[in-house]
Amino acid sequence: MKPIRLGMVGGGSGAFIGAIHRIAARMDGKYDLVAGALSSNPERAASSAADLGIRGYANFAEMAEAEAAREDGIEAVAIVTPNHMHAAPAVAFLRAGIHVICDKPLTATAEQAREIAEAASASAARFFLTHNYSALPMVREARALVAEGALGKVRLVHAEYLQGWLADEVHNKQADWRTDPAQAGAGALGDIGTHAWQLAEFVTGQTPSHVSAELSSMVPGRPIDDDARAALRYASGAKGGIWASQIAVGQENGLSLRVFGDKGALEWRLSDSERLIFSPKDGPAQILTRAQDRSGSFRTPPGHPEGYLEGFANLYLDIAEIIRGNETRVDRVPGLAAGLSGMAFIAAAKASSAKDGAWTPVAP
Amino acid sequence: MKPIRLGMVGGGSGAFIGAIHRIAARMDGKYDLVAGALSSNPERAASSAADLGIRGYANFAEMAEAEAAREDGIEAVAIVTPNHMHAAPAVAFLRAGIHVICDKPLTATAEQAREIAEAASASAARFFLTHNYSALPMVREARALVAEGALGKVRLVHAEYLQGWLADEVHNKQADWRTDPAQAGAGALGDIGTHAWQLAEFVTGQTPSHVSAELSSMVPGRPIDDDARAALRYASGAKGGIWASQIAVGQENGLSLRVFGDKGALEWRLSDSERLIFSPKDGPAQILTRAQDRSGSFRTPPGHPEGYLEGFANLYLDIAEIIRGNETRVDRVPGLAAGLSGMAFIAAAKASSAKDGAWTPVAP
Amino acid sequence: MKPIRLGMVGGGSGAFIGAIHRIAARMDGKYDLVAGALSSNPERAASSAADLGIRGYANFAEMAEAEAAREDGIEAVAIVTPNHMHAAPAVAFLRAGIHVICDKPLTATAEQAREIAEAASASAARFFLTHNYSALPMVREARALVAEGALGKVRLVHAEYLQGWLADEVHNKQADWRTDPAQAGAGALGDIGTHAWQLAEFVTGQTPSHVSAELSSMVPGRPIDDDARAALRYASGAKGGIWASQIAVGQENGLSLRVFGDKGALEWRLSDSERLIFSPKDGPAQILTRAQDRSGSFRTPPGHPEGYLEGFANLYLDIAEIIRGNETRVDRVPGLAAGLSGMAFIAAAKASSAKDGAWTPVAP
Amino acid sequence: MKPIRLGMVGGGSGAFIGAIHRIAARMDGKYDLVAGALSSNPERAASSAADLGIRGYANFAEMAEAEAAREDGIEAVAIVTPNHMHAAPAVAFLRAGIHVICDKPLTATAEQAREIAEAASASAARFFLTHNYSALPMVREARALVAEGALGKVRLVHAEYLQGWLADEVHNKQADWRTDPAQAGAGALGDIGTHAWQLAEFVTGQTPSHVSAELSSMVPGRPIDDDARAALRYASGAKGGIWASQIAVGQENGLSLRVFGDKGALEWRLSDSERLIFSPKDGPAQILTRAQDRSGSFRTPPGHPEGYLEGFANLYLDIAEIIRGNETRVDRVPGLAAGLSGMAFIAAAKASSAKDGAWTPVAP
Repeated sequence: MKPIRLGMVGGGSGAFIGAIHRIAARMDGKYDLVAGALSSNPERAASSAADLGIRGYANFAEMAEAEAAREDGIEAVAIVTPNHMHAAPAVAFLRAGIHVICDKPLTATAEQAREIAEAASASAARFFLTHNYSALPMVREARALVAEGALGKVRLVHAEYLQGWLADEVHNKQADWRTDPAQAGAGALGDIGTHAWQLAEFVTGQTPSHVSAELSSMVPGRPIDDDARAALRYASGAKGGIWASQIAVGQENGLSLRVFGDKGALEWRLSDSERLIFSPKDGPAQILTRAQDRSGSFRTPPGHPEGYLEGFANLYLDIAEIIRGNETRVDRVPGLAAGLSGMAFIAAAKASSAKDGAWTPVAP
Repeated sequence: MKPIRLGMVGGGSGAFIGAIHRIAARMDGKYDLVAGALSSNPERAASSAADLGIRGYANFAEMAEAEAAREDGIEAVAIVTPNHMHAAPAVAFLRAGIHVICDKPLTATAEQAREIAEAASASAARFFLTHNYSALPMVREARALVAEGALGKVRLVHAEYLQGWLADEVHNKQADWRTDPAQAGAGALGDIGTHAWQLAEFVTGQTPSHVSAELSSMVPGRPIDDDARAALRYASGAKGGIWASQIAVGQENGLSLRVFGDKGALEWRLSDSERLIFSPKDGPAQILTRAQDRSGSFRTPPGHPEGYLEGFANLYLDIAEIIRGNETRVDRVPGLAAGLSGMAFIAAAKASSAKDGAWTPVAP
Repeated sequence: MKPIRLGMVGGGSGAFIGAIHRIAARMDGKYDLVAGALSSNPERAASSAADLGIRGYANFAEMAEAEAAREDGIEAVAIVTPNHMHAAPAVAFLRAGIHVICDKPLTATAEQAREIAEAASASAARFFLTHNYSALPMVREARALVAEGALGKVRLVHAEYLQGWLADEVHNKQADWRTDPAQAGAGALGDIGTHAWQLAEFVTGQTPSHVSAELSSMVPGRPIDDDARAALRYASGAKGGIWASQIAVGQENGLSLRVFGDKGALEWRLSDSERLIFSPKDGPAQILTRAQDRSGSFRTPPGHPEGYLEGFANLYLDIAEIIRGNETRVDRVPGLAAGLSGMAFIAAAKASSAKDGAWTPVAP
Repeated sequence: MKPIRLGMVGGGSGAFIGAIHRIAARMDGKYDLVAGALSSNPERAASSAADLGIRGYANFAEMAEAEAAREDGIEAVAIVTPNHMHAAPAVAFLRAGIHVICDKPLTATAEQAREIAEAASASAARFFLTHNYSALPMVREARALVAEGALGKVRLVHAEYLQGWLADEVHNKQADWRTDPAQAGAGALGDIGTHAWQLAEFVTGQTPSHVSAELSSMVPGRPIDDDARAALRYASGAKGGIWASQIAVGQENGLSLRVFGDKGALEWRLSDSERLIFSPKDGPAQILTRAQDRSGSFRTPPGHPEGYLEGFANLYLDIAEIIRGNETRVDRVPGLAAGLSGMAFIAAAKASSAKDGAWTPVAP
């Protein structure tokens, strides 16, 4: 397979998630990063591009136009800017016929989400959303188990994403935009709550119909939620809960999912990401590892721990396959639908919280 | 210390919790079980008493009267009947001046709870409630850490009690009364949700002011809740959640508590009951064991696992001390206040669930 | 079943293991402790007996004679003295026709062990040895799995018992006799190494034929081993290892056993004593709990943790059954054979270590 | 930093460890793989090179000569062949002045090891050995803790590496050479035992002076050890043990290390590689994570699990730095000394096992 020519918007020096995307793209050798508009600051954009030895652009609009015009222009672009800066470049590249690999959540506002949706529906290019955790092998195996009925009818779902890094008032590049309503759109709810939401949706194959939410800003003066809880109702009758917090002292990156059906149950935790506990209703719990995984989403034998970066790379690998025509991978890579679902969750949770937790429909 | 002369109401052959109370009373040699009205069935009451070699009574009323009249009559009685049968014997023994050790939850109805409260206030005898988990050493240490400020201001509380044994329609002595609204009053909410509530209350020293609850009967035809979730608000501004379920397949007895403050956090799980994870905001998490416990609630060196029965026995030991005059133990043994708090939680959760999760005050 | 009339030798005020035996005897209500020679100090013996409200004797010889002569004399005696004081009372009570429940290891010397063996063979009374860990339900289930072939042919065995309480020079009642060669016979090797040895023997049903050992006294000036390692060879071709240490800082009571066969493997740790990991060669590992236990060695449902004291009580319960004629329990209660096996291990390990680790037969 | 021009010997299509090295080299963008003699089969060598888009050579000798002659020739070569094929290419490239990154163990024979040592001492080029586990951040932190005295004087060391994949007679590319004495030199002892040895040596900073070993071939007909145990004596008086097995059913990749000193202890397990348990003698155990790591050997915040590939990449990153002149990294990258130490362990263990476990010096 010929490597995909990749561009990047955002991810200049000092950025966090851009560097992650680059490692993920490099890991399996399926991409060549060749161009970027790496910063909104033109000088940093230029110097960052020089550091990486790629074609640098002062802004994404110029880049989309120029790359679309080149014979050897980029085939796909990774958008790794703050949330409020996803939509504009996504629309520009989709219009230019260039595939978009966008960081989550989809956008900062519902309006921005609509713009992406419209551009995507009008473009032959594809839109991918990097909900990376759902690309970990044991999560994919969890999904397969639910899909094949190993849990029976799903009754209870509980997803958590707990971090402690914002337990105090913090000021740095990451904290600043993530706690700014204008740039982030939502706090813990959007930044990590949408990961929990997508994880539950990906594994169960079901989207809640209603939520009752409680958003809190526990650190004095913080203008955005830093703790978000939501009770969930599913059309199937299942019930669930999501808890996302960035003030949970001592929690580094505590993502977890539990699903209980009438025949079995699953438990998965990121802190022990290579194991999946499957409890059939009758008989002992089983510790599933990659030896049981059927998705093939790894590079090493079971017992050689893979983790966060490999999960991200699994997405990049599948996206490369899809771009090169392998449609069998489409099903497991999050895209626009997952992004819109996350935005619907954010909107419903905010509305519910504003109405003192009233059960609120998750608008499709 | 001279052993306490103990009686028992309920706990005849085939009963579960009565046998547990007897082991707990025996373990430290501080009680002599000498009398009982062990069953509502007079024949079983007689044969069960004979099996135990104690004075048997056909019913608790007769027993209260007779024992109060004896020089060597019982000093305390354990009430280990189904919930709806707590109040009548408790009132009878309190009126007879005999200390009451009552299983949880307090009663099946608010009216019954009031009857106990009135009898208790009019009696010189004491009333104890066996919320046994709060007598485990690492739970007592958790409480001590919160009390001394190791967590700072408490912000987030999450307690769970998950079981799977009622995932199907089940019929046996235990299941039958616990799923009968008349006998139990509440399902998962009352049977185990009150344990979670009391655990959180005991450790944090705070009682939520409002709850928003969702009670479900997930097994078709079940007339009582088998899954109960509640969001919690505290007057202090803290937020919390309780999840109690008896349909969580694969969960044997999954009680846990997490508390996050602005300076530190605690995590405790019954499945690993001898360890308490304390995470100061700065610095690594610590694995506290009985080597760090300051309550002295154990019989063996750390590393020799003690568990459920020892926790129960810790309560019986403290109750014996209190009966013999050691007032320093009063503070850590649940009593009427804990029972009324649990009933208030049940009432508020039911009311909230009936109003589609509306935030409902927890009436004192 | 009528309770067994029990006596005790040793276990006066301040003793550790005597108190444990008393709790174990009390827990299930199958014993009445009625007599004791509780200390070699006659005054303490008298006051300890008075505290317990039992017949006190100044020494075991007097007690054996007097109790044997009484109609209502003791039926069994628990010997809970330091190792070098096991043999004399054991012989006296066996000769008096009184069953002996003896703490481990069997004795401090091979000569003492022979005396017990001779007395036991000449007596109608039975001899039991309280290797308590092998009475825990998941250990019994482990043995059942090996016996039924779930592991296939056993190839590898590894048992550890690590403690840290003697990492420094320590002086107190427990430390003093346990580090005195005359009283203890062996250090870590005897005190806890024999537990590991018996655990492995009990579960696998095999006794090593040869050992190569390395005994160390790591704390300067300590006259006895505080770290003991032994490589094991079995006649079957299996290989193994035992590691017992009392200077393993941070280890409270780290007993564990791993057994690998050609079809499956088992792993059990005292720190998580209610779970047994069974790994069939093909397919995922299983987390076995008391829900899978077939020995019935517990009092509460799975998930309600039982531990050290309950394991001890399991032995006492089985011993009561055996004394009352239930021969089906004999197989799972350690007795003279286990004691002699442990002494053979001590002797072989000492001999091997003295010969720089030469492989040394374990004399039967 | 300009990327290092890298070559590879071995690692053609179907190889395991070659692919791992390539991912490790790619991950941080510090290498360009440009040339290879990827297989001893010339056709596969050519097609594999074509697949990777690099200069292909029919054999390493030709490659060393040609690359040394090019202006843009490789600066370093990764040798990822079976053990018996390490020495010849290593010598060739060292003589050509090209840095060597060699997979472990050093060689299949002592003679081959000497050849490398001589070539290395005569060359300005460096020799690196990919004992990858010692490049994981928590292992590096473990070493730092020992070095700074947090454990006090080291007394006990225990390292294990347990796998189960060779529990049966297995035939495939990996199994075939790893169980062939001519190609591998040693079985479990060499393949994974040397990892355990190096891990212990790296963390403690001490090399045992003597070993007493027991090598077994438990699978009938296997011509090489599949289970290796060694007792260790250190010149400092410390004692230790190594257990390496490839027939430990259910074990995927069970590497672990425990070190006990007179002031504290460390425990690390690959299955939970992002945590390090530090137990000071006084006070509770601490769960150290990358939040406490001082080596900076990671790419993501703590809690985002990194693993096996990242550890390998840490080595490649440090090697790139060293090649570009950063001598501060030399200390933590295994090289010839580690390789010779491993070979000395293999030789001593074999000699000891052949002499029925006699204590045998580890020749420097």
